[in-house]
Amino acid sequence: MTLTSSLITLETTVRQRIDHKTKPLGALGRLEELALQIALIQRTETPALSNPHLLVFAGDHGLAAEGVSAYPADITYSMVRNFIAGGAAINVFCRQNGLNLLVCDVGVNGSFEENTDNFVKYKIRPGTRNMRYEAAMTPDECEAAIDAGKTLVNGVQYRDCNVIGFGEMGIGNTASAALLMHRLTNLPLEQCVGRGTGLTDSGLAHKRSILREVADQYVQLTDPMAILTAMGGLEIAAIVGGLLQATENGMLILIDGFIATAALLVAHALNPAVRQHCIFCHQSDETGHQLMLNFLNAQPLLTLNLRLGEGTGCALAYPIVQAAVGMLNEMATMDSL
Amino acid sequence: MTLTSSLITLETTVRQRIDHKTKPLGALGRLEELALQIALIQRTETPALSNPHLLVFAGDHGLAAEGVSAYPADITYSMVRNFIAGGAAINVFCRQNGLNLLVCDVGVNGSFEENTDNFVKYKIRPGTRNMRYEAAMTPDECEAAIDAGKTLVNGVQYRDCNVIGFGEMGIGNTASAALLMHRLTNLPLEQCVGRGTGLTDSGLAHKRSILREVADQYVQLTDPMAILTAMGGLEIAAIVGGLLQATENGMLILIDGFIATAALLVAHALNPAVRQHCIFCHQSDETGHQLMLNFLNAQPLLTLNLRLGEGTGCALAYPIVQAAVGMLNEMATMDSL
Repeated sequence: MTLTSSLITLETTVRQRIDHKTKPLGALGRLEELALQIALIQRTETPALSNPHLLVFAGDHGLAAEGVSAYPADITYSMVRNFIAGGAAINVFCRQNGLNLLVCDVGVNGSFEENTDNFVKYKIRPGTRNMRYEAAMTPDECEAAIDAGKTLVNGVQYRDCNVIGFGEMGIGNTASAALLMHRLTNLPLEQCVGRGTGLTDSGLAHKRSILREVADQYVQLTDPMAILTAMGGLEIAAIVGGLLQATENGMLILIDGFIATAALLVAHALNPAVRQHCIFCHQSDETGHQLMLNFLNAQPLLTLNLRLGEGTGCALAYPIVQAAVGMLNEMATMDSL
Repeated sequence: MTLTSSLITLETTVRQRIDHKTKPLGALGRLEELALQIALIQRTETPALSNPHLLVFAGDHGLAAEGVSAYPADITYSMVRNFIAGGAAINVFCRQNGLNLLVCDVGVNGSFEENTDNFVKYKIRPGTRNMRYEAAMTPDECEAAIDAGKTLVNGVQYRDCNVIGFGEMGIGNTASAALLMHRLTNLPLEQCVGRGTGLTDSGLAHKRSILREVADQYVQLTDPMAILTAMGGLEIAAIVGGLLQATENGMLILIDGFIATAALLVAHALNPAVRQHCIFCHQSDETGHQLMLNFLNAQPLLTLNLRLGEGTGCALAYPIVQAAVGMLNEMATMDSL
């Protein structure tokens, strides 16, 4: 049997399994679709979730010097310390829902103590260059950040992880994500730029004008890698690498909000196969995220008006993913009643 | 200080606490509203969730004889056996998310072994009367079912439970719920009647014509208790009792889908204070549920196209409730960075 025909057979088998559960046909809605997707990714009618991880990549942005964020750049450093100490939202939600959190510094402007289990140093440089004046990264730096993502994904898979979410921290990264979105979806820049962590109207207007200037400067670039190198972030490139490696490894991927989805747009341009591994965890309140999801023909599991990043949407949606798998494996069948 | 002014002070304190967490203002969206609501219900800035329970009430419906459901009436009995054995969706989701499941027979047409921890017998009669020909319950029967709900809620509160969800099983109960909705919201009957467990177009037309007939017969009733007695179900009345008692006990209440929300409409008509104790867990795919939520000015946490009942929406949304409490209690503050 070819791979395609064996997957079609598996799909039929899984659909029948779901339809014979003790419930009206289709009554578990999205959970039924999710269970089928997971079964097809894992190529089994009895999928299992093993050692779930949330990888948070952090990096600073040279463009932050242009005032594109409501917060000062050193918040990136403070928040990474907060992740390491266990006090951020993503720590709380990962603890609650049983995900292992790993924080990775690929580009923070500052150093951290490295003697904690939940921290990995893979620093390329202390923040991207200011893309208003030069490309955010050199090709080598961008490749190195991608490699960091790939290496971490392989590392957790080695520890039997088969489901992985990606989070990020980096003051200024909604600006970078908006530019990537603009170039990879071809949507007008205005539709891609939002308030990020909470810009005022005038702050938003300023961010728009800076990003217009940057976009115009790199308008000749069409290759996804060149676009990422010029306008991405180190943490975004690391997520791109993570997404590509997780796809290659046959893992289940949890997609967070605006920044993580921008990374997915890049990964998707490089390897469309990534799309079928993705569970879209939530729809962010950041302008543009819904348009990204539409572009990817993706329906999010949660809409809770979050706009925090860090992978919080992944951690919050994970119990729904578990429920879908539990339904498939643990529910009784109509015949057994 | 009066109760009102002390609650206003508490609200200010909790909002400040949330605003000082390590995140942009408002970035946790619905979780922030939820945390505030829970703090106000528990009257503390450090709320806690204790020994969560999901009570599933089951009862048969005399009206099922008129062919208002896609499934035969004896499915109620089979499904309660399934609950007791642990094989239903609600069993899977409660196990996963740490809720204690209690199943209570208030009106199933059939007997169960009573030697399991998760089953309570409180049978009023083996199903309601056929409301096409006579009131579904006598006033005494309806009161007894309400008492069953109150008794169970007090029982679990005695075991330190402070958060409770309600589920139901009863073939034919979307018909009863639609009639209650019609009378308590004054919306046209057509907007209240849906496909339930999966009626065809002709089945739906038949259900509508039967319910039209029943509604016309009891059109003179205006008292909520009289409406519940004539057109309710034993399991619905038990939930009404549970909702009223949980409110009186100061508990947090998890609201499920169409049937549970119909019970809430009755409880709300009897004591509007119930509303502020409620967390609306999901929006069902059953026609009419969204209109019920609008009537109550309620925004659901999840929209996953569920239409199963059993309390499954409560069990699936519970981790989000936990996350809101965890955010308030465990996240670090900006000052500590």
